[in-house]
Amino acid sequence: MSRGYFWSEKMNVGFIGLGAMGSGMAAKLLEAGHAVTVFNRTPAKAEPLCARGAKLAHSITEACQGDAVFTMLADDNAVHQVVFGAGGLVESLASGKIHISSSTISIALSERMEAAHAEHRQRYLAAPVFGRPDAAAAGKLFVVAAGESGTVRDAAPLLEAISQKTFTISDKPQAANLVKLSGNFLIASVIETLGEAMALVSKSGVDKDAYLEILTSTLFGAPVYKTYGGLLARGTFEPAGFAAPLGLKDLQLVLAAGDMLRVPLPVASLLRDRFLRLLAQGGEKLDWAAIGSLAAKDAGEQ
Amino acid sequence: MSRGYFWSEKMNVGFIGLGAMGSGMAAKLLEAGHAVTVFNRTPAKAEPLCARGAKLAHSITEACQGDAVFTMLADDNAVHQVVFGAGGLVESLASGKIHISSSTISIALSERMEAAHAEHRQRYLAAPVFGRPDAAAAGKLFVVAAGESGTVRDAAPLLEAISQKTFTISDKPQAANLVKLSGNFLIASVIETLGEAMALVSKSGVDKDAYLEILTSTLFGAPVYKTYGGLLARGTFEPAGFAAPLGLKDLQLVLAAGDMLRVPLPVASLLRDRFLRLLAQGGEKLDWAAIGSLAAKDAGEQ
Repeated sequence: MSRGYFWSEKMNVGFIGLGAMGSGMAAKLLEAGHAVTVFNRTPAKAEPLCARGAKLAHSITEACQGDAVFTMLADDNAVHQVVFGAGGLVESLASGKIHISSSTISIALSERMEAAHAEHRQRYLAAPVFGRPDAAAAGKLFVVAAGESGTVRDAAPLLEAISQKTFTISDKPQAANLVKLSGNFLIASVIETLGEAMALVSKSGVDKDAYLEILTSTLFGAPVYKTYGGLLARGTFEPAGFAAPLGLKDLQLVLAAGDMLRVPLPVASLLRDRFLRLLAQGGEKLDWAAIGSLAAKDAGEQ
Repeated sequence: MSRGYFWSEKMNVGFIGLGAMGSGMAAKLLEAGHAVTVFNRTPAKAEPLCARGAKLAHSITEACQGDAVFTMLADDNAVHQVVFGAGGLVESLASGKIHISSSTISIALSERMEAAHAEHRQRYLAAPVFGRPDAAAAGKLFVVAAGESGTVRDAAPLLEAISQKTFTISDKPQAANLVKLSGNFLIASVIETLGEAMALVSKSGVDKDAYLEILTSTLFGAPVYKTYGGLLARGTFEPAGFAAPLGLKDLQLVLAAGDMLRVPLPVASLLRDRFLRLLAQGGEKLDWAAIGSLAAKDAGEQ
C-alpha cells in the first residue's frame, strides 16, 4: 500500500466473518471511507453491508486482494479453516499484505498463524477487541494489538476506524490474544461473584437494584459491573449478546494458556465448571451472564 | 437530643475504637463541629484527637453520655465485649440514645445487638463503611445504613460528617452488615482474579503496568481495580492498609451469612482457603491484597 498522502489512508480491506461483531466492525470501516470487500459463509449476512457500499466476495481468495484482511470468527476451528484451508488466507494473501486477526482464539493457533504467515512473507497482526456488539456498531471497541511495529503502523487507519482506542502491547502477536482471553476471564469472574453476592443479599431481603446502585457508585463503578449487574438484576439472558458456549470456549482457552505457561488458575477452573453446568442444563442459547444466576438457583431462589 | 434549630445539628457523640479507620472518622466528626468524646482500650491513640478538641473518656460509660455513640472495632469479639460487657453500651446508654455500629461484623451479632438495644429502649443503627483509612481521614467513606427511619434521620448529621454519601437500604440493621460483608467479598474476588490474570499474562512477557492500564481504561475502570491492581503490580503489601487476618475474618463472616441464609458461595469458599494459606505461610502482617500474589507464586514466578 502506498503511504505518504493523506488520501492514501483510505485502504482496500477484506473482512471475513459477519456475525454480530464483524458486521459492526465492517460497517465502521466503510464509514471511515475504506474500500471493504466482505465474505461470509452465509452470504445473506453480507447484504446490509453491500447495500452500504461493500463489495461482496464469493470466496475467501476474493476477500484477500486488498492491503489487509480482517478475520472475526467464532472460534479456533473457524479461523483455522479460513486461514489454512484450501483457498484460505495463507494461500491467497500476496507478499507483504496483512492478516488482522480479531477473533478470540487460542495462543497456540495465534503462534501457528504467525509462523505460517512469516513463511509466506505475509504480515500478521493479532488485534482482538473488547466490547459487545453495540460497541462494535458504534466504533467504540477497544483493540489490543500485538505484532511487528511496522505492521501495527500500517494497519493503524483500519484499527482507528473500528475502535475508540488501540493498545499496542508487544511484538509477539500471541500476547494480545492472551490479554483478550484474560479479560474475558475477568469479566466472567465479575459475573460469577456478583451472582453470588446478589444471591446472598437478596435472600436477606435487600433489593437487587438498590444493592447494585451501592456497588456501582462506590468501589465498583466500572462498565462491567453496570452491564452485567443490570443483566443479573433483571434476570434476562435472552437474546444473548455473547452466548454461553462462547464463554465456555474462552474459559477453556484461558485454562489452555495456563497449561502451556504452567499457571494454575483456581477461579478460572471454577468458572469452567459453572459454564459446563449452565450448558448441561439447557443454557446453550443464553447470554454468558446466566452463569451468574446459578448461585441464586443453588440457594433455592429460582 | 433537641431538634429544630440549626445549631442543634451539632451533636454530642461518643466514639469507641480509634484504629486507623476510627481515628479518621472521629477527626471528621470534630471538624464538623460535633462534641466528641473518645474512648480506646489503649488511651495513647486518643492523644492526637484530644489535641484537636476531643474529650477523653476513661471508660466506655463515659463515652455513652451523648446523643449517640459510634463503635468502630476490629471484630465480633471486640464489639461483643464493648456492647454486652460490664459497663458496656447496653448498661450505659440512656433510653432513646443511639448506638451507631460501623464495625464489620457478623449478621448474627448485629441481630443480637438490635434485640438487646430494643429491650433497653435504646436505638440501634448499623452503619458499616466502605473505604480505606485514607478515605476515612478525608471524610470520603461511603456509609451503608440500616435501621428504623427515625434513627437514620437523627443520626444523619453524624453520618454526613464522616462520608461522601450514605445509602439507607433497610429498616433491618443486619441488611447493612450483609451488604458490607458482600462488598468485601467482591473486593477479595477482584484481588484474587486480578492476581490470576496478572500471573498468566506476565509469565508470557506482558508488562504488568501496561496490562493494568488496558484493564482500567476499558471495562474495569473502577477504583477497586486501580487500587488493588497497583498494589499487585508493585508487589508491595506492607504496611497493611487492611491486614490479611481481617480479610480472612470477613470471608468467614460472608460464609457464615451464607450458612444462615442457605446460600452456597463457591468463590467465597475458595477465597477463604487463599487467606488461610497466606496466613499459614507467614502473611499475618501483610495487606489482604497479598492473596493476589499467590497465583504468581504457584506459577513459579516469585
